[in-house]
Amino acid sequence: MAPLDIPEVVIDRLPVYYRLLSRIRAEGETVVSSHELGEALGVTPAQIRKDLSYFGRFGKQGRGYSVDRLHEELRLILGLHRSWNLVLVGMGRLGQAIASYRGFDAEGMQIVAAFDADSTIVGTNVGRIVVRDSAQLERDLKDLTVDIGVVAVPAEHAQEVIERLVKAGIKAILNYAPVAIQAPPGVEIRQVDPVLQLQSMTYHLTRNARART
Amino acid sequence: MAPLDIPEVVIDRLPVYYRLLSRIRAEGETVVSSHELGEALGVTPAQIRKDLSYFGRFGKQGRGYSVDRLHEELRLILGLHRSWNLVLVGMGRLGQAIASYRGFDAEGMQIVAAFDADSTIVGTNVGRIVVRDSAQLERDLKDLTVDIGVVAVPAEHAQEVIERLVKAGIKAILNYAPVAIQAPPGVEIRQVDPVLQLQSMTYHLTRNARART
Repeated sequence: MAPLDIPEVVIDRLPVYYRLLSRIRAEGETVVSSHELGEALGVTPAQIRKDLSYFGRFGKQGRGYSVDRLHEELRLILGLHRSWNLVLVGMGRLGQAIASYRGFDAEGMQIVAAFDADSTIVGTNVGRIVVRDSAQLERDLKDLTVDIGVVAVPAEHAQEVIERLVKAGIKAILNYAPVAIQAPPGVEIRQVDPVLQLQSMTYHLTRNARART
Repeated sequence: MAPLDIPEVVIDRLPVYYRLLSRIRAEGETVVSSHELGEALGVTPAQIRKDLSYFGRFGKQGRGYSVDRLHEELRLILGLHRSWNLVLVGMGRLGQAIASYRGFDAEGMQIVAAFDADSTIVGTNVGRIVVRDSAQLERDLKDLTVDIGVVAVPAEHAQEVIERLVKAGIKAILNYAPVAIQAPPGVEIRQVDPVLQLQSMTYHLTRNARART
């Protein structure tokens, strides 16, 4: 059992560790060092050891980590031994793109229902999902088993939609709308934010331009 | 001038610091402590001080950071004092959603051209952009000033498209396709990867479910 005071930034790194270990495991490696993990992820071996130490003793000094064991522990810690049901709200271009995103299924994430407020979209098929009327969101969610809400509505509607999802009992939200959301207590919110990623690249572009002059 | 050995994870955190400082500044605060910054971002004050120390001395022990000065330094370091031109490749549903994403313009990121391989899409308007034929990608890029490539093609085409962009001289790529890309040397690649964000939330959902039983 993990302790309660693990920093959020450490938790956000665990899926990255898990994915790397899945790859190492597929390559047939059985042992990996904090040095190798750090190399692959661009962090110090000390950071790797500290991050993983929150969850118990996975490795032995000088011998590295058992790939199988660490992979399995992370799978359990992250809850990836089971599948998760997503509900998607907002079926404009972005919502439709999310509904057809092939990265979810492979990781046990299933979109089980999709909603939109636009009556010209409600009732249409997107892949194997029929778009529901978001006026019926609360009623429909009572009959569905949903773990995570995915929000792809315009920015000005995001806060309201998220509050409705939370009132309906959803405790985790992935928000694609380009707006900062006030997270109600006990609810996890993650923001898909391409601008932050672009800005970490402009750092490099700026530095390289400086180096050339 | 920043030193050359700043860990990539630190650079990835700088836009987050910058955004937080923009908010603090808008609220009229003039001084902020590493403790306050850490509270807001869920990291230790020591981590904040260490991250910022790579870029010079912004604060004084016990007195906090000057919000204006730190904000301005980060703006320059990240290259956000200028605008950046994006080229978008892949104008299916995802590409169209990206083209209408309102989060870019506000941060000085402009999509200056968009390409697709589908002849039924080429020549159509998406917002104020006319979709170009990706067969002409190399030729058109010669006449455009582009800093960053944004890739929204199907997974199986992503590697090839990225190699073409890199050959055309683009040094930074934001990849939306759900596939791991081999980054050529000297090229920065960032992956928009909602699955990693979902998996850090399933950690919390799993832990809370355990705590209830």
